[in-house]
Amino acid sequence: MTKDLATPAAATYSLAKLRDVNRTAALNRWLGFEVVRAEGGEAELRMPWHEDATQYAGFLHAGVLGALIDTACGFAATTVAGSVLASHYSVNCMAPAVGQAFVARASVVKAGRRQVFARAEVFAERDGALRLVATGETILIPVEKAEGK
Amino acid sequence: MTKDLATPAAATYSLAKLRDVNRTAALNRWLGFEVVRAEGGEAELRMPWHEDATQYAGFLHAGVLGALIDTACGFAATTVAGSVLASHYSVNCMAPAVGQAFVARASVVKAGRRQVFARAEVFAERDGALRLVATGETILIPVEKAEGK
Amino acid sequence: MTKDLATPAAATYSLAKLRDVNRTAALNRWLGFEVVRAEGGEAELRMPWHEDATQYAGFLHAGVLGALIDTACGFAATTVAGSVLASHYSVNCMAPAVGQAFVARASVVKAGRRQVFARAEVFAERDGALRLVATGETILIPVEKAEGK
Amino acid sequence: MTKDLATPAAATYSLAKLRDVNRTAALNRWLGFEVVRAEGGEAELRMPWHEDATQYAGFLHAGVLGALIDTACGFAATTVAGSVLASHYSVNCMAPAVGQAFVARASVVKAGRRQVFARAEVFAERDGALRLVATGETILIPVEKAEGK
Repeated sequence: MTKDLATPAAATYSLAKLRDVNRTAALNRWLGFEVVRAEGGEAELRMPWHEDATQYAGFLHAGVLGALIDTACGFAATTVAGSVLASHYSVNCMAPAVGQAFVARASVVKAGRRQVFARAEVFAERDGALRLVATGETILIPVEKAEGK
Repeated sequence: MTKDLATPAAATYSLAKLRDVNRTAALNRWLGFEVVRAEGGEAELRMPWHEDATQYAGFLHAGVLGALIDTACGFAATTVAGSVLASHYSVNCMAPAVGQAFVARASVVKAGRRQVFARAEVFAERDGALRLVATGETILIPVEKAEGK
Repeated sequence: MTKDLATPAAATYSLAKLRDVNRTAALNRWLGFEVVRAEGGEAELRMPWHEDATQYAGFLHAGVLGALIDTACGFAATTVAGSVLASHYSVNCMAPAVGQAFVARASVVKAGRRQVFARAEVFAERDGALRLVATGETILIPVEKAEGK
Repeated sequence: MTKDLATPAAATYSLAKLRDVNRTAALNRWLGFEVVRAEGGEAELRMPWHEDATQYAGFLHAGVLGALIDTACGFAATTVAGSVLASHYSVNCMAPAVGQAFVARASVVKAGRRQVFARAEVFAERDGALRLVATGETILIPVEKAEGK
């Protein structure tokens, strides 16, 4: 994937800072999100299986797939564009989301001054093997500090 | 919105049945989803404010907006197409999601034999007033009982 | 649909101006787009059947459905937000697109300072009757004149 | 990207067959689409600059970007799933689409029995260099021959 990470003038986020941000988000804590990696327009989240985060058939709820995609894309974006807000995301559900853990890998496709485009893949982990269960895209808006957001 | 609800041959869901389904979904229970209405290709969910379902800034997490949209659209679809599985959904985040409760209203736009298209709006409720905070779309796949799904 | 059309400070477009803009777009001219209506966050386009704009099965090409959705949403947005650029759009293909003409109706769902969300429906016209063949959404970025765009 | 190309039982398309299909689509002919490559879940289209396919600012019309994405994804899908119909596609416009030619590269992410998920990138070619101008996703429905479609 060709990438264009020409960064807007903004204070980008380090892995340490993203781990702090991740801890301040109540849902991320409850779901057990862990920031594995975040650098150079990429980020990886990990989440253990969570019995209470399921839909009616016992699979991981599609809303949690969305939370993983939206969060991983947002974190990837902050490494090149600083603070961002999600404005749009989409989720493709490709296989039943069951496993011992889930891994979401996001990467920035294009970082512009007014918008950052990122995308992510979510894998279910089972006995060490990863299986693709969902993909998604996110559009993020860089937030200037001067605006007090 | 013109609607085409020519229903596939399937056992459609009643409000009572959807309330049962809703109770069997662990995340829906934890988030406090309540099925207010479900009939004729439409469905409405309500969820009280939930302190543990927030992102870093204290707003409702975008993943929960996705869960509301995906679930409301799915429930709307079952009223005309019976059992369905979500294959794709998208979320537009339009305003900070804060309020005493959230209301998601979904309606089926087109119910085909192989796909059902639905869309939803999510409102934040504050002192009785509703404010649009998100919109979204969902594509659902009718699941034939014979397939044992 | 609840709408939030609190307009950014921008010179909004009139129907007359949009007809001029429409004429300067070569593809719009070739396809025969006609701006029927544009006001208050809404716009309607009409296009006669065009034998050379079809896909392999003889239906209107999905790319032309996209052109109708993207253009109608953009024109709707200019009536409240002035100049805009499309950053994202999506198309749901719901029925074979055949007819004597096509009508695209777009409306702004939310006009913010940094993004305008709009959506559209495309109908095939046949002997005076309209049939829904596609829906779509568009995210538009207001373009400040000072930026010379 | 992990891929799951477990193919539905269907007669897949060869490059030669796709070139025939491409020639039967009037819009593809008018736009000058050329099928460069198609095999194993991937496809590449090329289109020379086309003065009449532009929007008001003189860039390639976003609808044509959609036509390239939708077509390239569809062709990629046929190499593993046989005949398909597009049900949904989305387009991210990342940079002004100007160049001597455009190249669209699509690949199947997951081919299921009821749905095929593919995605594509569109590049503008200028003096031999490619620049990413758009990305997109498409959901396609396999069409069984028995249904006469």
